Amino acid sequence: MQQPPPAQPGMREDEIDTPALVIDLDAFEYNLDCMAAILAPTGVRLRAHAKTHKSPVIAHRQIARGAIGQCVQKVAEAEILAWGGVADILVSNEIVGAQKLARLVALSGISKVAVCVDDAAQVAAAERAAADAGVRLSVLVEIDVGAARCGVAPGPAAVELALAIAKSKHLRFGGLQAYQGSAQHRRGVEERKTLIGHAIEGSRRTVEQLRQQGLDCPIVGGGGTGTFEIEAASGIYTEIQAGSYAFMDADYARNLDAAGQPVSTFRHALFVLATVMSAPRHGLAVLDAGHKAVSIDSGMPTLWQRPDIRYVSASDEHGKLEYGPETAAVKLGETLRLVPGHCDPTVDRFDWYVGVRGGRVECLWPVAARGGVA
Amino acid sequence: MQQPPPAQPGMREDEIDTPALVIDLDAFEYNLDCMAAILAPTGVRLRAHAKTHKSPVIAHRQIARGAIGQCVQKVAEAEILAWGGVADILVSNEIVGAQKLARLVALSGISKVAVCVDDAAQVAAAERAAADAGVRLSVLVEIDVGAARCGVAPGPAAVELALAIAKSKHLRFGGLQAYQGSAQHRRGVEERKTLIGHAIEGSRRTVEQLRQQGLDCPIVGGGGTGTFEIEAASGIYTEIQAGSYAFMDADYARNLDAAGQPVSTFRHALFVLATVMSAPRHGLAVLDAGHKAVSIDSGMPTLWQRPDIRYVSASDEHGKLEYGPETAAVKLGETLRLVPGHCDPTVDRFDWYVGVRGGRVECLWPVAARGGVA
Repeated sequence: MQQPPPAQPGMREDEIDTPALVIDLDAFEYNLDCMAAILAPTGVRLRAHAKTHKSPVIAHRQIARGAIGQCVQKVAEAEILAWGGVADILVSNEIVGAQKLARLVALSGISKVAVCVDDAAQVAAAERAAADAGVRLSVLVEIDVGAARCGVAPGPAAVELALAIAKSKHLRFGGLQAYQGSAQHRRGVEERKTLIGHAIEGSRRTVEQLRQQGLDCPIVGGGGTGTFEIEAASGIYTEIQAGSYAFMDADYARNLDAAGQPVSTFRHALFVLATVMSAPRHGLAVLDAGHKAVSIDSGMPTLWQRPDIRYVSASDEHGKLEYGPETAAVKLGETLRLVPGHCDPTVDRFDWYVGVRGGRVECLWPVAARGGVA
Repeated sequence: MQQPPPAQPGMREDEIDTPALVIDLDAFEYNLDCMAAILAPTGVRLRAHAKTHKSPVIAHRQIARGAIGQCVQKVAEAEILAWGGVADILVSNEIVGAQKLARLVALSGISKVAVCVDDAAQVAAAERAAADAGVRLSVLVEIDVGAARCGVAPGPAAVELALAIAKSKHLRFGGLQAYQGSAQHRRGVEERKTLIGHAIEGSRRTVEQLRQQGLDCPIVGGGGTGTFEIEAASGIYTEIQAGSYAFMDADYARNLDAAGQPVSTFRHALFVLATVMSAPRHGLAVLDAGHKAVSIDSGMPTLWQRPDIRYVSASDEHGKLEYGPETAAVKLGETLRLVPGHCDPTVDRFDWYVGVRGGRVECLWPVAARGGVA
């Protein structure tokens, strides 16, 4: 069941009911402007990933700054974006099952939708779904550029699938999905460059072999928040699929730049606001936000601008804080901002964003595709 | 936004849209009967923990088998249970903030509610909330029986708080909250017995000191799925707060009994049904359920009755499976049941339970308090 909003516009930040998902609107808008400024000179387009934000409101903010559309991972996310007026949606993932494919092609009347495949059986399934709906569906081939997850090998296997798509009456070959997820959080810039170098090489080789078969490749998509500048400079990628850049998180903030310093391109814009619910003694405090409120798959959250306090462990509904004798006592009832370890799954735990500027609640936005796993 | 149900009653299990949260109703009912049978001869009551299931439907199934009520961790959960007809609800946790306390006492007209404190400021806050609402609120003192999270020390500190409650005009001293969470997943039975032995000793000592001050202790509550038989045999605990027993999970299944064998008291009744969305080569397959669909805070999920297949890693929307050459190829489109590593946070990711019996969908139940973090 959807939860009621934890705040009303006009409230002070410390009046927000906790735990709550808070956006610092200044930092969020800075991040969107920053991404637009970085990509503008490259000519590479941004197709921001909605798996991070799950919100048509945020999608439209990105599109207003030049993004050409959105990526999603799930049909449920595509539906929420299409119903919310997003006109160009790529499911950057495989969709298995006639029911799900029917739901996807049913969106064609209001949005341009596309999907990925990595198996000939999936080309046939997409063709059936598109034929049944009487539409023409754009289908991309996912190539495995190093993450060893989904995708066919770059080169001949990809070309074979692309030809099968191109020959299908109700399908259109949309290009290559070439996202290297496992490179995004490698800490050293040289390591990220090496891994993305392989992805670029595999993509370039596949595009060339497609051309030899007379197939144009309208989209070569990939690039996350950790590596997108490398893909954008490649001359082969046409679309960047970063999502986390809009919010940032503690894990991405651990990536290092060429000088060995934490990458500082984007600002922390997403927080979980939490309240101290128990303060049994100096040095120990317990927050009302455990791992049901803030994801711990990529490490514990950090305390915003409080490096002297550590979030040491999460249980379902409790977060344990430790701090040293030199820190002033953390008080019962005090509210603190957490920087999530990982933004995407943290967003997916909440029904509402609370947009804050200058210490006041400015807006409420629904996490409209929360729980859209199917 | 609430997601649509992934199935309809009457469907076959393999027709359920995935990922989906599935209850094996036979195993679930077995678990409820089993708990009732174990506790009956002890005279200790079950106050099952709704943080696990978040569902008035399941609460009523537990109450029909003798549970005297429910525990919750959050006011949002108390509201959903009270609104769903559950008559006796203990918030086994501290609730900080006038707004939240007002919401809790506002339920007094339809349910008997109680809450825990571990600080004198909280006694005063509870008194204000109860006085404002014109009700008398039952308040328990949480004692730290070894988990080093919330709670005051057993003995004098607890007695002092209990006296403050008893002296408050609109409060009633409800007893002791004495849950030892950190003992629940210790693998060896002797280790669990030692830790709960300390919890029993601290509880007994506190109850005696309360009696010396003329205070009865109507409830001594604690005991989770990993240890409840020890608390139930203690002669001092009056209520068991187990939650996971109804569903079980992969983590609890790693606890060992006195013979060094995995504890087999309860059956696995909760699953995430998932579909193979990519099968690039023999030995590797990718499921459509990553850690947005199945929690990984207590380890990866396991494959139900398929020890030959391992779920090796989860990303947001993908679960990677590995298997050996002797296993028949895992096929694209195949559905598989996952046993979650941890049931509580997995349930909290879904809007619907799909109840299955004999391979058919028998019922749909909403996860009514999903996302109720506040």
